[in-house]
Amino acid sequence: MAAAGRAVLGLDIGGTKLAVGVVGADGTVAGFLVEPTRKHEGYHAVIGRLFDMGQRAILAARAEGFLAADESPSAVGISCGGPLDAQNGVLTGPLHLPGWVDVPIVAMAEAEFPVPVALENDATAAAYGEYCFGAGRGTETMVYLTISTGVGGGAIINGRLHRGASGNGGEFGHIQVRPGGRPGYGNRAGTLEAYASGTAIAQRAAEAVADLTANGGHSSLGEIAQIRAEDVVAAAKAEDPLAEAIWTETVEVLASALTDLVNILEPDLVVLGGGVTRSGDMLIEPVRRSVLEQAMPPAAAAVRIVLAELGDTVGVVGAGAIAFDKLARESARTATPMDVHV
Amino acid sequence: MAAAGRAVLGLDIGGTKLAVGVVGADGTVAGFLVEPTRKHEGYHAVIGRLFDMGQRAILAARAEGFLAADESPSAVGISCGGPLDAQNGVLTGPLHLPGWVDVPIVAMAEAEFPVPVALENDATAAAYGEYCFGAGRGTETMVYLTISTGVGGGAIINGRLHRGASGNGGEFGHIQVRPGGRPGYGNRAGTLEAYASGTAIAQRAAEAVADLTANGGHSSLGEIAQIRAEDVVAAAKAEDPLAEAIWTETVEVLASALTDLVNILEPDLVVLGGGVTRSGDMLIEPVRRSVLEQAMPPAAAAVRIVLAELGDTVGVVGAGAIAFDKLARESARTATPMDVHV
Repeated sequence: MAAAGRAVLGLDIGGTKLAVGVVGADGTVAGFLVEPTRKHEGYHAVIGRLFDMGQRAILAARAEGFLAADESPSAVGISCGGPLDAQNGVLTGPLHLPGWVDVPIVAMAEAEFPVPVALENDATAAAYGEYCFGAGRGTETMVYLTISTGVGGGAIINGRLHRGASGNGGEFGHIQVRPGGRPGYGNRAGTLEAYASGTAIAQRAAEAVADLTANGGHSSLGEIAQIRAEDVVAAAKAEDPLAEAIWTETVEVLASALTDLVNILEPDLVVLGGGVTRSGDMLIEPVRRSVLEQAMPPAAAAVRIVLAELGDTVGVVGAGAIAFDKLARESARTATPMDVHV
Repeated sequence: MAAAGRAVLGLDIGGTKLAVGVVGADGTVAGFLVEPTRKHEGYHAVIGRLFDMGQRAILAARAEGFLAADESPSAVGISCGGPLDAQNGVLTGPLHLPGWVDVPIVAMAEAEFPVPVALENDATAAAYGEYCFGAGRGTETMVYLTISTGVGGGAIINGRLHRGASGNGGEFGHIQVRPGGRPGYGNRAGTLEAYASGTAIAQRAAEAVADLTANGGHSSLGEIAQIRAEDVVAAAKAEDPLAEAIWTETVEVLASALTDLVNILEPDLVVLGGGVTRSGDMLIEPVRRSVLEQAMPPAAAAVRIVLAELGDTVGVVGAGAIAFDKLARESARTATPMDVHV
């Protein structure tokens, strides 16, 4: 869990938006700011603006009385899409930021903010944010899945954030749900992400509409020039048969991947976040029913499946949770045996 | 890791065999004994014989000088197939021991051996045995899969045995590899176990032979009255096309489930054990190639995939490792802060 009593700065680098804020030891956020990424400007310009936003967030947090007038954050957490090298603080080549190759973001941030800086995969950071400050408070083993442009995730196992051997653990979007199915990342076809991401839902609907139209059929989605996932949800709610079929398969693949995760890890909690979960009960109720039906009985009896709680600030709060974790690990490393209470 | 300097008693309850032995702090075994389970005699009789075997193993270990003349094991570990309630020490209803319902095996063992007694799922115990004393020594995050009559497994995550919320974690046999495929346990179809267990391999081959014969075809397997998994392996080695097809799909489903596990957990090591792995290179080489091709590049780069090392004593050594773990946890709980070194 996060250390108490200090505030940290959270920086979240998305493909379309940058978000920053000062995060308190209870997960509250002050000085929250969001601006467009404008990634075409190149990483020097974007990161420069990100750090400026961080400084403005600190000023705002002081103005709000969240920080004292002379107080600075004790650490900085940075959340970004992968692949990245968290241990060495380098963005090796984030998929959502083309051309950002081997960017030493942590060293750059340490030059700007003279405090410990931690970097983490965005889905992993969001998982840890929900664990420390959101839906996952008080759980032991928690699985977090974010269903948005892509599908990612993270796991807290026995109270510890699981990073895995390369630090990119929690690649739940690449669980195979349809062998031989739609192309996924690299050589892995039929993955959860290839079916259930917002992008994939929209694409599957567009393909199905084209097929239906070619065969003389009609769907309300046919009237939309550029179908989005939320259009599919709305049309399924309005009982458009094509949209209902797309949605049914989305629920099916999601429940299948979650059943695997529940059987493998036996979490006490599964948290679903990301834009696609704005569909709410349309998603979570049938997913829950299907997972509980399919999972091994002891695992099914032990797990709850809920929606994420943090909403739009999840990136910043997740980055903040990672920064608190860094402080806690550093103080554990420098502690004498007398400091440790079992 | 196991505590050093003491010996424990390992008891392994299989559906066909009981195995016992005294396990040293380095994983060596003395007084190893194996006898048929004869489960039709009922659990009182079987457990009575198991405890007698344990007493004989202690005498033998003393005779061999493995234990001093007046020395007894410091703890007892019991390994058995699930479902079981490890925390409360009860066999709730092991699938391989019909009629053994709510058997308080730990309380029974404590009455016989006046030392701490631990109970664990057999696949989980085997995973821990390989981690402490076998192929997994020195790893951080290890996935163990046993492919035998059924398919089970266990995971060590960040150096700790992962038990999960109900203590039955590591149900890797129930990963779905063929949605809508062969029936699996409960409501989950197309599971790894339904394709890759020894039983399933034999059954798939028998069905394929029946089909082929009905269509006037011929396979060398058609001459065998009761096909076993090892017959399929031998026939595939001899390039019988039907056996090769069965084996190719076995490798495919195994690689698919392992790819999911590697992406989800990012282990540094995957260990494959159980009777079916006696097929050796026929199995591990194509599985390894396929997993490395399909897994996310950072996870693939970080993982090694190897065969188990413990062989026939794995059940007893696994039970012993669990007993050492129990001792270590008990001494951690009773330690004062001064005893703990960070």
